[in-house]
Amino acid sequence: MALIVQKYGGTSVGSVDRISQVADRVIETAKQGHQVVVVVSAMSGETDRLIDLANGLTELPAPRELDVLLSTGEQVSIALLSMTLIKKGYQARSYTGAQVKILTDGVHNKARIINIDGSAIADDLGNGRIVVVAGFQGVDIEGNITTLGRGGSDTTAVALAAALKADECQIYTDVDGVYTTDPRIEPQARLLRRVTFEEMLEMASLGAKVLQIRAVEFAGRYGVPLRVLNTFSDDPGTLIALEEKGEKKMEQPLVSGIAFNRNEAKLTVLGVPDQPGVAAKILCPIGDAAIDVDMIIQNAATQGLIDFTFTVNRTDFERAQAILVKVVAELGAEGIVTDKKIAKISLVGVGMKSHAGIASTMFTTLGQEGINIQLISTSEIKVSVVVDEKYLELGVRSLHAAFGLDRAPEEEQLTG
Amino acid sequence: MALIVQKYGGTSVGSVDRISQVADRVIETAKQGHQVVVVVSAMSGETDRLIDLANGLTELPAPRELDVLLSTGEQVSIALLSMTLIKKGYQARSYTGAQVKILTDGVHNKARIINIDGSAIADDLGNGRIVVVAGFQGVDIEGNITTLGRGGSDTTAVALAAALKADECQIYTDVDGVYTTDPRIEPQARLLRRVTFEEMLEMASLGAKVLQIRAVEFAGRYGVPLRVLNTFSDDPGTLIALEEKGEKKMEQPLVSGIAFNRNEAKLTVLGVPDQPGVAAKILCPIGDAAIDVDMIIQNAATQGLIDFTFTVNRTDFERAQAILVKVVAELGAEGIVTDKKIAKISLVGVGMKSHAGIASTMFTTLGQEGINIQLISTSEIKVSVVVDEKYLELGVRSLHAAFGLDRAPEEEQLTG
Repeated sequence: MALIVQKYGGTSVGSVDRISQVADRVIETAKQGHQVVVVVSAMSGETDRLIDLANGLTELPAPRELDVLLSTGEQVSIALLSMTLIKKGYQARSYTGAQVKILTDGVHNKARIINIDGSAIADDLGNGRIVVVAGFQGVDIEGNITTLGRGGSDTTAVALAAALKADECQIYTDVDGVYTTDPRIEPQARLLRRVTFEEMLEMASLGAKVLQIRAVEFAGRYGVPLRVLNTFSDDPGTLIALEEKGEKKMEQPLVSGIAFNRNEAKLTVLGVPDQPGVAAKILCPIGDAAIDVDMIIQNAATQGLIDFTFTVNRTDFERAQAILVKVVAELGAEGIVTDKKIAKISLVGVGMKSHAGIASTMFTTLGQEGINIQLISTSEIKVSVVVDEKYLELGVRSLHAAFGLDRAPEEEQLTG
Repeated sequence: MALIVQKYGGTSVGSVDRISQVADRVIETAKQGHQVVVVVSAMSGETDRLIDLANGLTELPAPRELDVLLSTGEQVSIALLSMTLIKKGYQARSYTGAQVKILTDGVHNKARIINIDGSAIADDLGNGRIVVVAGFQGVDIEGNITTLGRGGSDTTAVALAAALKADECQIYTDVDGVYTTDPRIEPQARLLRRVTFEEMLEMASLGAKVLQIRAVEFAGRYGVPLRVLNTFSDDPGTLIALEEKGEKKMEQPLVSGIAFNRNEAKLTVLGVPDQPGVAAKILCPIGDAAIDVDMIIQNAATQGLIDFTFTVNRTDFERAQAILVKVVAELGAEGIVTDKKIAKISLVGVGMKSHAGIASTMFTTLGQEGINIQLISTSEIKVSVVVDEKYLELGVRSLHAAFGLDRAPEEEQLTG
C-alpha cells in the first residue's frame, strides 16, 4: 500500500462528465489498495469567469478580496468530486486550503506555502477515506484566504505530498508526459520515461510547459517523486525523480531533451568602457523595473571596451530598451543593438555534466544546417544557443536527430 | 453614530451593476457616520446553478459536500462587494462564515447558529472598516462548513446584529416593506411603518413572505430592531420592533394587517367516541409522517361523539388522508370529510389583545358579504377563519375596509 497524491487540472474537471471520469480514476487507484489524496483545480473557464465578474466592477481588484473570490473555484471542484466519490460508494471528504491548514505568507495572489498541517488528512486516510483538497489556495497566519497564483495547484499537490511523505505525486494533465522536445515541431519527439528534477527545471523554464516550475523545485527540494500523466489515457507518463544511483547512471542518455523559447528578445550594449561594476550598472536598473533577465553574456575586452548582451521576455523589450538608452549615456558606451526575432534552443541532460563533446556536436550540427549561432550559454546540465527565429524548427529537428532522441535508450524500462 | 447591520438578498446583488448600487447604499450609510456590517446572499441564480451542477453528478448529494459547494455562492458575493467598496475609496473587508466564526450545530443544509464571535468584526469597525459577511453559512465545532438552509441570510444578519449589539438590522428586499395585506389582492393596502415581532411572526407564517420566520423569532428573542426596506427605493420601509411603551400604545391601531393562505386543506374526522387521548391518537401519526398541522379545532361532544378538524399544507393532503383512513378504523369513528378548496384569512394585531369586539366585527363583515365561515381559531394577536377558497379576495378586501386599514392612523410617523 502506497500513499499517492493525485492532482487534476482544470481541463480534467471541466465538466460533470469529466469529474465523473476523474472519480473513476481515483477509485481505480484506491482499489489497488493505495491511500489517495486528490488535489483539484477550478473547472476550466471558472477562474476566468470569476475574474470577468471582478473586472466588471474594478480593473484592479483588491488583492485580498480577489483571493476570496478566486478560491471559490477550487471549492466548487472539491465538493463536486467528493460527492461523486461518495455517490460511487466510497468514503470521501473535501478540504479547502484553510481547512487543511495550508499556511502561507500573506502575499495575496502569489502566496508561498510555509507549512502544511497534514494531521487531519492523515486521520482521514487512516479511516479509509479518500481526501480531496482544493489546490491553489491557502490561509495566512491571520486566517485570510490566500492563493498561490496561476498553476499553484501543482505546488499544492507537491507540498501536500512532501508533508504527508507520499510515495508519489501524480500530476494529471492533457498530455502524456514530458517529451524530448515539442511534438508539434518534431513529430519524432519521444515521451521520456524518466527525467531528473534538474532536467525538468531546465525544460520547464525553457518553454516545455507541462509543470509549474515552482512545483518541480519544491519536489526536488523534498525529494518527492513526481509523475506527469494524461487524465484521458492509461500511459504511465513521465517520472521526475532524483538521479538514479549505481550502474544505470553509466548508461543514461547524454541529452534528455531539447527545449526552446521563441518569446525572448536580445539587447546588446556596445563599446562599454571595461571597469569593475559595469555589469551591475547595466542590469540593476533593469531589475529595478521588475524585468526578468534570462541569458547574460559578456565577451572579453578588446582595447578597453566590452560588449554586453542579455535577453529579456519579448513583452518587456520596449521598457528594457528605454532604460538602456539612459544607461548608455551614463556609461559613455557606444550604443545599443537589439533583436526581437531570436529564438533560444537548449540541450538539456544530466548526462552532459561529464561529456564535453556535447557542445561541439551541437555547434557542428547547427553549422552544417547553415544556422548562425548568435549567443552561447552553458550550465552543468544544459547548453543554450540563440539563433535567428526563422531557424528554430530546423535547429530543433536537426539536433533531435543528431542526438538520437527519437530512439529509446536500450536500458530504459516502463516504470509506471 | 449607530451600528447598522444591512442584509442584501440575491436579487439585490444579482449583477455587477446591482452590486455597485448596493455599494453606494452601504457607503451612504457609512457617510452618515454609522458603522456598517453588510450581510449578502449569493447572486440570484447562483445557488440554482450550483445545485444543477451537483445534480448532474448525483441526485442526493452528500450533505457535507453540498454545503461546501453552496457556500461558494455567498463567498463570491462578499468578495465582489468588498472590492467594489474598496474601489470606491472605502476600507472594507470580507468574511466567510468560517472566518467570522459563526458557530453552528453540525446539521448540514439546515444548521442552527449556536454562537457568533464578533470580536474580529468589532476590531475592523473600530478601525473604520466596512465589514462584509457571507450570509447563509457557518462552521461547526470541527471546522466543517455548514449552511443554514434557504433564506438563512436573514438569520445570519439578525444573529450578527444581536452578537454585535447593533442598533438596527436592515433587511433589503425588492418590496417596500410590510403591507396591511397583499397589494395584489387589495390595491388599497397600505405600507406599515411599524409592527411588533409577534405581529410579524403571524404575518410571515400566514403567507406574507417578506422575511424568514426564523430571523423574526431570533430578532424578537434578542430584541434586535428589524427594518424591511427596498434596495431600489429610498422609502424607510417597515420597522419590526418591540411594542412601544407608554401613551402611544393607547392609540395603536387594533388590527395591523390581514394575512391569508390559500395553500391549506381541511380534514375532519367525524363521530369520534369522546375519550381522553383522542386528539393525540389522531395527530401523532400525522406528526410522525413529518406533516405540519396548522389549525386544530375540536367541538364540544354531543351524545359522546366529537368532530375533530385540522388543516395541513395542500401538498401533504393526500398523505394525511391516507393516514386518517387507518386512524378512523382504529378509533371506531364514523368517517372523514375533507376539503382542499379552502382559504384562511387572519386579522393580526397586538391591539386586539384587549378588544373582544374585533372578532365579532370580523364575523359580521364576512356574513354581510354572504361568506360562510367554516372554522375559527383565535390567539392573543390574531383571529383566523377558514372560508371557501373562492371567497378569499372578497373576504380580504371587505375586512381591509371594515377595519380602516387603508387609512393611516393619525399618530403614525415616518420612523426611517
